[in-house]
Amino acid sequence: MSDFDRWKNTRLGKQILFLVEADKLKGVFRQSRLIEEDRKENDAEHSWHIALMVPILEEYGPANLDKFKVIKMLLIHDLVEIEVGDVLVYDLKQRKLQAILEQEAAKKVFGFLPFNQKEELLALWKEFEARQTPEAKFARALDRLQPLILNYFSNGQAWLEHQPTLDSVLAVNCIIQDASPELWKFAEGLIQESVARGYLK
Amino acid sequence: MSDFDRWKNTRLGKQILFLVEADKLKGVFRQSRLIEEDRKENDAEHSWHIALMVPILEEYGPANLDKFKVIKMLLIHDLVEIEVGDVLVYDLKQRKLQAILEQEAAKKVFGFLPFNQKEELLALWKEFEARQTPEAKFARALDRLQPLILNYFSNGQAWLEHQPTLDSVLAVNCIIQDASPELWKFAEGLIQESVARGYLK
Repeated sequence: MSDFDRWKNTRLGKQILFLVEADKLKGVFRQSRLIEEDRKENDAEHSWHIALMVPILEEYGPANLDKFKVIKMLLIHDLVEIEVGDVLVYDLKQRKLQAILEQEAAKKVFGFLPFNQKEELLALWKEFEARQTPEAKFARALDRLQPLILNYFSNGQAWLEHQPTLDSVLAVNCIIQDASPELWKFAEGLIQESVARGYLK
Repeated sequence: MSDFDRWKNTRLGKQILFLVEADKLKGVFRQSRLIEEDRKENDAEHSWHIALMVPILEEYGPANLDKFKVIKMLLIHDLVEIEVGDVLVYDLKQRKLQAILEQEAAKKVFGFLPFNQKEELLALWKEFEARQTPEAKFARALDRLQPLILNYFSNGQAWLEHQPTLDSVLAVNCIIQDASPELWKFAEGLIQESVARGYLK
Protein backbone atom coordinates (compact mmCIF):
# COMPACT_ATOMS: atom_id res chain seq x y z
CA MET A 1 0.00 0.00 0.00
CA SER A 2 1.52 3.33 -1.09
CA ASP A 3 1.47 6.45 1.02
CA PHE A 4 -1.24 7.81 -1.23
CA ASP A 5 -3.46 4.76 -0.71
CA ARG A 6 -3.16 5.35 3.02
CA TRP A 7 -4.10 9.04 2.55
CA LYS A 8 -7.35 8.06 0.87
CA ASN A 9 -8.77 7.09 4.24
CA THR A 10 -7.65 10.22 6.03
CA ARG A 11 -9.68 13.39 6.45
CA LEU A 12 -7.63 15.13 3.73
CA GLY A 13 -7.95 12.09 1.48
CA LYS A 14 -11.75 12.26 1.69
CA GLN A 15 -11.69 15.98 0.91
CA ILE A 16 -9.49 15.38 -2.15
CA LEU A 17 -11.74 12.57 -3.38
CA PHE A 18 -14.75 14.91 -3.05
CA LEU A 19 -12.88 17.42 -5.24
CA VAL A 20 -12.15 14.64 -7.73
CA GLU A 21 -15.86 13.69 -7.79
CA ALA A 22 -16.76 17.38 -8.22
CA ASP A 23 -14.70 17.45 -11.44
CA LYS A 24 -17.63 15.66 -13.09
CA LEU A 25 -19.68 18.88 -12.92
CA LYS A 26 -17.66 20.05 -15.94
CA GLY A 27 -19.45 17.40 -17.99
CA VAL A 28 -23.03 18.31 -16.98
CA PHE A 29 -24.50 20.52 -19.69
CA ARG A 30 -27.21 23.13 -19.30
CA GLN A 31 -29.69 24.72 -21.69
CA SER A 32 -27.94 28.11 -21.79
CA ARG A 33 -25.63 28.80 -24.69
CA LEU A 34 -22.32 30.63 -24.36
CA ILE A 35 -22.18 34.13 -25.80
CA GLU A 36 -19.28 33.70 -28.22
CA GLU A 37 -18.60 29.96 -28.29
CA ASP A 38 -20.99 27.80 -30.29
CA ARG A 39 -21.97 25.35 -27.58
CA LYS A 40 -24.02 24.97 -24.41
CA GLU A 41 -22.68 25.92 -21.00
CA ASN A 42 -21.76 23.34 -18.39
CA ASP A 43 -22.57 23.52 -14.69
CA ALA A 44 -19.00 24.26 -13.56
CA GLU A 45 -18.77 27.26 -15.88
CA HIS A 46 -22.19 28.46 -14.75
CA SER A 47 -21.22 28.07 -11.08
CA TRP A 48 -18.05 30.11 -11.63
CA HIS A 49 -19.96 32.84 -13.44
CA ILE A 50 -22.60 33.28 -10.74
CA ALA A 51 -19.97 33.18 -7.97
CA LEU A 52 -18.16 36.00 -9.80
CA MET A 53 -21.44 37.95 -9.78
CA VAL A 54 -21.36 38.15 -5.96
CA PRO A 55 -18.49 40.66 -5.60
CA ILE A 56 -19.63 42.50 -8.76
CA LEU A 57 -23.33 42.88 -7.88
CA GLU A 58 -23.37 42.65 -4.07
CA GLU A 59 -24.33 46.34 -3.76
CA TYR A 60 -27.80 45.48 -5.12
CA GLY A 61 -28.45 42.83 -2.48
CA PRO A 62 -29.60 43.33 1.11
CA ALA A 63 -27.21 44.95 3.59
CA ASN A 64 -25.12 42.77 5.93
CA LEU A 65 -25.21 39.80 3.60
CA ASP A 66 -22.81 36.96 4.52
CA LYS A 67 -21.10 37.06 1.12
CA PHE A 68 -18.80 34.08 1.77
CA LYS A 69 -21.90 32.02 2.50
CA VAL A 70 -23.61 33.22 -0.70
CA ILE A 71 -20.57 32.23 -2.76
CA LYS A 72 -20.30 28.84 -1.04
CA MET A 73 -23.95 28.16 -1.87
CA LEU A 74 -23.40 29.09 -5.50
CA LEU A 75 -20.24 26.98 -5.81
CA ILE A 76 -21.97 23.85 -4.51
CA HIS A 77 -25.61 24.33 -5.58
CA ASP A 78 -25.40 22.32 -8.79
CA LEU A 79 -23.24 19.42 -7.56
CA VAL A 80 -26.37 17.28 -7.19
CA GLU A 81 -26.67 17.43 -11.00
CA ILE A 82 -23.62 15.15 -11.28
CA GLU A 83 -26.10 12.46 -10.23
CA VAL A 84 -29.36 13.63 -11.79
CA GLY A 85 -28.46 16.00 -14.65
CA ASP A 86 -29.89 19.39 -15.55
CA VAL A 87 -33.59 20.00 -16.13
CA LEU A 88 -35.05 22.86 -18.17
CA VAL A 89 -36.13 25.54 -15.70
CA TYR A 90 -39.43 26.01 -17.56
CA ASP A 91 -40.36 22.30 -17.36
CA LEU A 92 -42.32 22.53 -14.09
CA LYS A 93 -43.51 18.91 -14.05
CA GLN A 94 -40.01 17.49 -14.52
CA ARG A 95 -38.63 19.92 -11.94
CA LYS A 96 -40.92 18.54 -9.23
CA LEU A 97 -39.66 15.01 -9.84
CA GLN A 98 -36.11 16.33 -10.02
CA ALA A 99 -36.43 17.96 -6.58
CA ILE A 100 -37.11 14.55 -5.03
CA LEU A 101 -34.20 12.88 -6.83
CA GLU A 102 -31.87 15.71 -5.82
CA GLN A 103 -32.40 15.00 -2.12
CA GLU A 104 -30.77 11.59 -2.53
CA ALA A 105 -28.14 12.98 -4.90
CA ALA A 106 -27.11 15.57 -2.31
CA LYS A 107 -26.54 12.89 0.32
CA LYS A 108 -24.41 10.95 -2.13
CA VAL A 109 -22.21 13.74 -3.46
CA PHE A 110 -21.65 15.49 -0.11
CA GLY A 111 -21.18 12.03 1.41
CA PHE A 112 -17.66 11.96 -0.03
CA LEU A 113 -16.68 14.55 2.59
CA PRO A 114 -15.74 14.10 6.25
CA PHE A 115 -18.89 14.05 8.40
CA ASN A 116 -18.85 17.67 9.64
CA GLN A 117 -18.37 19.06 6.12
CA LYS A 118 -20.99 16.74 4.69
CA GLU A 119 -23.50 18.03 7.23
CA GLU A 120 -22.50 21.66 6.62
CA LEU A 121 -22.78 21.52 2.83
CA LEU A 122 -25.99 19.51 2.94
CA ALA A 123 -27.52 22.17 5.20
CA LEU A 124 -26.21 24.93 2.95
CA TRP A 125 -27.67 23.27 -0.14
CA LYS A 126 -31.05 22.88 1.60
CA GLU A 127 -30.93 26.53 2.66
CA PHE A 128 -30.33 27.51 -0.99
CA GLU A 129 -33.23 25.38 -2.17
CA ALA A 130 -35.62 26.65 0.53
CA ARG A 131 -34.88 30.32 -0.38
CA GLN A 132 -35.89 31.72 3.02
CA THR A 133 -32.73 33.47 4.24
CA PRO A 134 -31.31 36.68 2.70
CA GLU A 135 -28.24 34.72 1.52
CA ALA A 136 -30.34 32.07 -0.21
CA LYS A 137 -32.61 34.70 -1.80
CA PHE A 138 -29.64 36.59 -3.22
CA ALA A 139 -27.91 33.41 -4.39
CA ARG A 140 -31.08 32.19 -6.11
CA ALA A 141 -31.54 35.59 -7.75
CA LEU A 142 -28.05 35.44 -9.30
CA ASP A 143 -28.67 31.85 -10.39
CA ARG A 144 -31.72 33.12 -12.33
CA LEU A 145 -30.20 36.34 -13.64
CA GLN A 146 -27.13 34.76 -15.26
CA PRO A 147 -29.05 32.60 -17.79
CA LEU A 148 -31.15 35.66 -18.73
CA ILE A 149 -27.93 37.54 -19.51
CA LEU A 150 -26.41 34.64 -21.49
CA ASN A 151 -29.62 34.16 -23.40
CA TYR A 152 -30.05 37.82 -24.28
CA PHE A 153 -26.44 38.25 -25.41
CA SER A 154 -26.45 35.00 -27.41
CA ASN A 155 -29.38 36.31 -29.47
CA GLY A 156 -32.06 34.43 -27.56
CA GLN A 157 -30.92 31.00 -28.75
CA ALA A 158 -32.12 29.06 -25.70
CA TRP A 159 -35.58 30.66 -25.85
CA LEU A 160 -35.85 30.19 -29.59
CA GLU A 161 -35.00 26.50 -29.05
CA HIS A 162 -37.36 25.83 -26.14
CA GLN A 163 -40.03 28.50 -26.77
CA PRO A 164 -41.16 29.18 -23.21
CA THR A 165 -44.06 31.63 -22.90
CA LEU A 166 -43.52 35.17 -21.63
CA ASP A 167 -45.72 34.33 -18.62
CA SER A 168 -43.56 31.34 -17.66
CA VAL A 169 -40.36 33.38 -18.05
CA LEU A 170 -41.76 36.07 -15.76
CA ALA A 171 -43.04 33.47 -13.25
CA VAL A 172 -39.72 31.62 -13.04
CA ASN A 173 -37.55 34.72 -12.82
CA CYS A 174 -39.60 37.04 -10.65
CA ILE A 175 -37.92 35.58 -7.55
CA ILE A 176 -35.07 37.97 -8.42
CA GLN A 177 -37.30 40.75 -7.07
CA ASP A 178 -37.30 39.27 -3.54
CA ALA A 179 -33.53 39.71 -3.36
CA SER A 180 -33.09 42.89 -5.35
CA PRO A 181 -35.74 45.19 -6.89
CA GLU A 182 -32.97 46.88 -8.89
CA LEU A 183 -31.70 43.65 -10.46
CA TRP A 184 -35.29 42.61 -11.18
CA LYS A 185 -35.92 45.92 -12.94
CA PHE A 186 -32.86 45.20 -15.09
CA ALA A 187 -34.01 41.60 -15.73
CA GLU A 188 -37.48 42.81 -16.74
CA GLY A 189 -35.81 45.17 -19.18
CA LEU A 190 -33.88 42.28 -20.73
CA ILE A 191 -37.08 40.23 -21.00
CA GLN A 192 -39.03 43.11 -22.59
CA GLU A 193 -36.20 43.72 -25.05
CA SER A 194 -36.15 39.97 -25.82
CA VAL A 195 -39.83 40.16 -26.74
CA ALA A 196 -39.13 43.24 -28.90
CA ARG A 197 -36.37 41.35 -30.71
CA GLY A 198 -38.50 38.25 -31.26
CA TYR A 199 -36.55 35.93 -28.94
CA LEU A 200 -39.66 35.37 -26.85
CA LYS A 201 -43.34 35.34 -27.74
CA MET B 1 -32.75 54.21 -28.01
CA SER B 2 -34.24 51.36 -25.97
CA ASP B 3 -34.22 51.25 -22.18
CA PHE B 4 -31.48 48.64 -22.38
CA ASP B 5 -29.28 50.86 -24.54
CA ARG B 6 -29.61 53.54 -21.89
CA TRP B 7 -28.68 51.01 -19.17
CA LYS B 8 -25.41 50.24 -20.91
CA ASN B 9 -24.00 53.54 -19.72
CA THR B 10 -25.15 53.17 -16.14
CA ARG B 11 -23.13 51.67 -13.30
CA LEU B 12 -25.17 48.45 -13.48
CA GLY B 13 -24.81 48.39 -17.25
CA LYS B 14 -21.02 48.46 -16.98
CA GLN B 15 -21.10 45.66 -14.40
CA ILE B 16 -23.28 43.52 -16.67
CA LEU B 17 -21.01 44.15 -19.67
CA PHE B 18 -18.02 43.06 -17.56
CA LEU B 19 -19.89 39.83 -16.79
CA VAL B 20 -20.60 39.41 -20.51
CA GLU B 21 -16.89 39.91 -21.30
CA ALA B 22 -15.99 37.42 -18.54
CA ASP B 23 -18.04 34.76 -20.36
CA LYS B 24 -15.09 34.47 -22.77
CA LEU B 25 -13.06 32.75 -20.03
CA LYS B 26 -15.06 29.60 -20.85
CA GLY B 27 -13.25 29.48 -24.18
CA VAL B 28 -9.68 29.79 -22.83
CA PHE B 29 -8.19 26.30 -22.62
CA ARG B 30 -5.50 25.10 -20.24
CA GLN B 31 -3.01 22.24 -20.33
CA SER B 32 -4.78 20.19 -17.63
CA ARG B 33 -7.07 17.42 -18.77
CA LEU B 34 -10.39 16.62 -17.10
CA ILE B 35 -10.52 13.41 -15.10
CA GLU B 36 -13.42 11.67 -16.87
CA GLU B 37 -14.08 13.79 -19.95
CA ASP B 38 -11.67 13.43 -22.87
CA ARG B 39 -10.71 17.07 -23.27
CA LYS B 40 -8.67 19.86 -21.73
CA GLU B 41 -10.05 22.08 -18.98
CA ASN B 42 -10.97 25.70 -19.55
CA ASP B 43 -10.17 28.62 -17.27
CA ALA B 44 -13.75 29.10 -16.03
CA GLU B 45 -13.97 25.46 -14.94
CA HIS B 46 -10.56 25.69 -13.28
CA SER B 47 -11.55 28.90 -11.47
CA TRP B 48 -14.71 27.26 -10.14
CA HIS B 49 -12.81 24.20 -8.97
CA ILE B 50 -10.18 26.15 -7.03
CA ALA B 51 -12.81 28.46 -5.52
CA LEU B 52 -14.62 25.32 -4.30
CA MET B 53 -11.35 24.21 -2.68
CA VAL B 54 -11.46 27.20 -0.31
CA PRO B 55 -14.33 26.03 1.95
CA ILE B 56 -13.18 22.41 1.61
CA LEU B 57 -9.49 22.91 2.45
CA GLU B 58 -9.46 26.15 4.48
CA GLU B 59 -8.50 24.26 7.67
CA TYR B 60 -5.02 23.65 6.19
CA GLY B 61 -4.38 27.35 5.57
CA PRO B 62 -3.25 29.97 8.07
CA ALA B 63 -5.66 31.05 10.83
CA ASN B 64 -7.75 34.21 10.40
CA LEU B 65 -7.65 34.04 6.63
CA ASP B 66 -10.04 36.43 4.83
CA LYS B 67 -11.74 33.62 2.93
CA PHE B 68 -14.02 35.86 0.89
CA LYS B 69 -10.92 37.66 -0.36
CA VAL B 70 -9.22 34.35 -1.23
CA ILE B 71 -12.25 33.26 -3.25
CA LYS B 72 -12.51 36.62 -5.02
CA MET B 73 -8.85 36.35 -6.04
CA LEU B 74 -9.39 32.86 -7.39
CA LEU B 75 -12.56 33.81 -9.30
CA ILE B 76 -10.82 36.70 -11.09
CA HIS B 77 -7.18 35.56 -11.30
CA ASP B 78 -7.37 34.11 -14.81
CA LEU B 79 -9.53 36.79 -16.46
CA VAL B 80 -6.38 38.35 -17.98
CA GLU B 81 -6.08 35.16 -20.06
CA ILE B 82 -9.11 36.26 -22.10
CA GLU B 83 -6.62 38.68 -23.67
CA VAL B 84 -3.37 36.73 -23.60
CA GLY B 85 -4.26 33.04 -23.35
CA ASP B 86 -2.83 30.34 -21.10
CA VAL B 87 0.87 29.52 -20.92
CA LEU B 88 2.32 26.19 -19.76
CA VAL B 89 3.38 26.66 -16.13
CA TYR B 90 6.70 24.87 -16.82
CA ASP B 91 7.65 27.21 -19.72
CA LEU B 92 9.58 29.72 -17.61
CA LYS B 93 10.77 31.88 -20.54
CA GLN B 94 7.28 32.31 -21.98
CA ARG B 95 5.89 32.99 -18.52
CA LYS B 96 8.17 36.02 -18.05
CA LEU B 97 6.91 37.55 -21.29
CA GLN B 98 3.36 36.62 -20.32
CA ALA B 99 3.67 38.48 -17.01
CA ILE B 100 4.34 41.74 -18.88
CA LEU B 101 1.44 41.21 -21.30
CA GLU B 102 -0.89 40.39 -18.42
CA GLN B 103 -0.37 43.83 -16.85
CA GLU B 104 -2.00 45.46 -19.88
CA ALA B 105 -4.61 42.72 -20.13
CA ALA B 106 -5.67 43.33 -16.52
CA LYS B 107 -6.25 47.01 -17.19
CA LYS B 108 -8.35 46.14 -20.20
CA VAL B 109 -10.56 43.43 -18.70
CA PHE B 110 -11.14 45.13 -15.35
CA GLY B 111 -11.60 48.38 -17.27
CA PHE B 112 -15.11 47.25 -18.19
CA LEU B 113 -16.12 47.86 -14.56
CA PRO B 114 -17.06 51.10 -12.81
CA PHE B 115 -13.92 52.89 -11.58
CA ASN B 116 -13.98 51.80 -7.91
CA GLN B 117 -14.46 48.13 -8.83
CA LYS B 118 -11.82 48.31 -11.54
CA GLU B 119 -9.31 49.64 -9.00
CA GLU B 120 -10.33 47.03 -6.40
CA LEU B 121 -10.03 44.03 -8.71
CA LEU B 122 -6.80 45.29 -10.26
CA ALA B 123 -5.29 45.60 -6.78
CA LEU B 124 -6.61 42.16 -5.85
CA TRP B 125 -5.12 40.60 -8.99
CA LYS B 126 -1.76 42.26 -8.28
CA GLU B 127 -1.88 40.99 -4.70
CA PHE B 128 -2.48 37.46 -6.01
CA GLU B 129 0.44 37.73 -8.43
CA ALA B 130 2.81 39.20 -5.81
CA ARG B 131 2.07 36.34 -3.36
CA GLN B 132 3.05 38.29 -0.25
CA THR B 133 -0.12 38.26 1.88
CA PRO B 134 -1.54 35.13 3.59
CA GLU B 135 -4.59 35.31 1.29
CA ALA B 136 -2.47 35.44 -1.86
CA LYS B 137 -0.22 32.62 -0.63
CA PHE B 138 -3.17 30.37 0.07
CA ALA B 139 -4.90 31.26 -3.21
CA ARG B 140 -1.73 30.57 -5.19
CA ALA B 141 -1.26 27.26 -3.37
CA LEU B 142 -4.74 26.08 -4.41
CA ASP B 143 -4.10 27.28 -7.97
CA ARG B 144 -1.05 24.97 -8.03
CA LEU B 145 -2.58 22.04 -6.18
CA GLN B 146 -5.62 21.63 -8.43
CA PRO B 147 -3.69 20.83 -11.64
CA LEU B 148 -1.61 18.28 -9.69
CA ILE B 149 -4.83 16.56 -8.63
CA LEU B 150 -6.32 16.64 -12.15
CA ASN B 151 -3.10 15.37 -13.64
CA TYR B 152 -2.68 12.52 -11.16
CA PHE B 153 -6.29 11.35 -11.48
CA SER B 154 -6.26 11.60 -15.30
CA ASN B 155 -3.33 9.17 -15.41
CA GLY B 156 -0.64 11.82 -15.82
CA GLN B 157 -1.77 12.85 -19.30
CA ALA B 158 -0.57 16.47 -19.11
CA TRP B 159 2.88 15.42 -17.88
CA LEU B 160 3.17 12.64 -20.45
CA GLU B 161 2.32 15.22 -23.13
CA HIS B 162 4.68 17.99 -21.98
CA GLN B 163 7.34 15.93 -20.16
CA PRO B 164 8.45 18.45 -17.51
CA THR B 165 11.34 17.28 -15.32
CA LEU B 166 10.78 16.26 -11.71
CA ASP B 167 12.96 19.19 -10.64
CA SER B 168 10.82 21.72 -12.51
CA VAL B 169 7.63 20.20 -11.11
CA LEU B 170 9.00 20.50 -7.58
CA ALA B 171 10.26 24.06 -8.22
CA VAL B 172 6.95 25.29 -9.62
CA ASN B 173 4.77 23.66 -6.99
CA CYS B 174 6.82 24.09 -3.81
CA ILE B 175 5.11 27.46 -3.21
CA ILE B 176 2.27 25.35 -1.79
CA GLN B 177 4.49 24.84 1.25
CA ASP B 178 4.47 28.57 2.10
CA ALA B 179 0.71 28.45 2.54
CA SER B 180 0.27 24.99 3.97
CA PRO B 181 2.92 22.41 4.97
CA GLU B 182 0.16 19.80 5.17
CA LEU B 183 -1.11 20.39 1.63
CA TRP B 184 2.49 20.41 0.39
CA LYS B 185 3.12 17.06 2.04
CA PHE B 186 0.09 15.72 0.21
CA ALA B 187 1.24 17.29 -3.10
CA GLU B 188 4.70 15.77 -2.67
CA GLY B 189 3.06 12.40 -2.19
CA LEU B 190 1.13 12.83 -5.45
CA ILE B 191 4.33 13.80 -7.26
CA GLN B 192 6.27 10.82 -5.85
CA GLU B 193 3.46 8.49 -6.78
CA SER B 194 3.41 10.03 -10.27
CA VAL B 195 7.10 9.17 -10.64
CA ALA B 196 6.43 5.63 -9.39
CA ARG B 197 3.65 5.26 -12.00
CA GLY B 198 5.81 6.60 -14.83
CA TYR B 199 3.84 9.84 -15.38
CA LEU B 200 6.94 11.88 -14.60
CA LYS B 201 10.63 11.16 -15.13
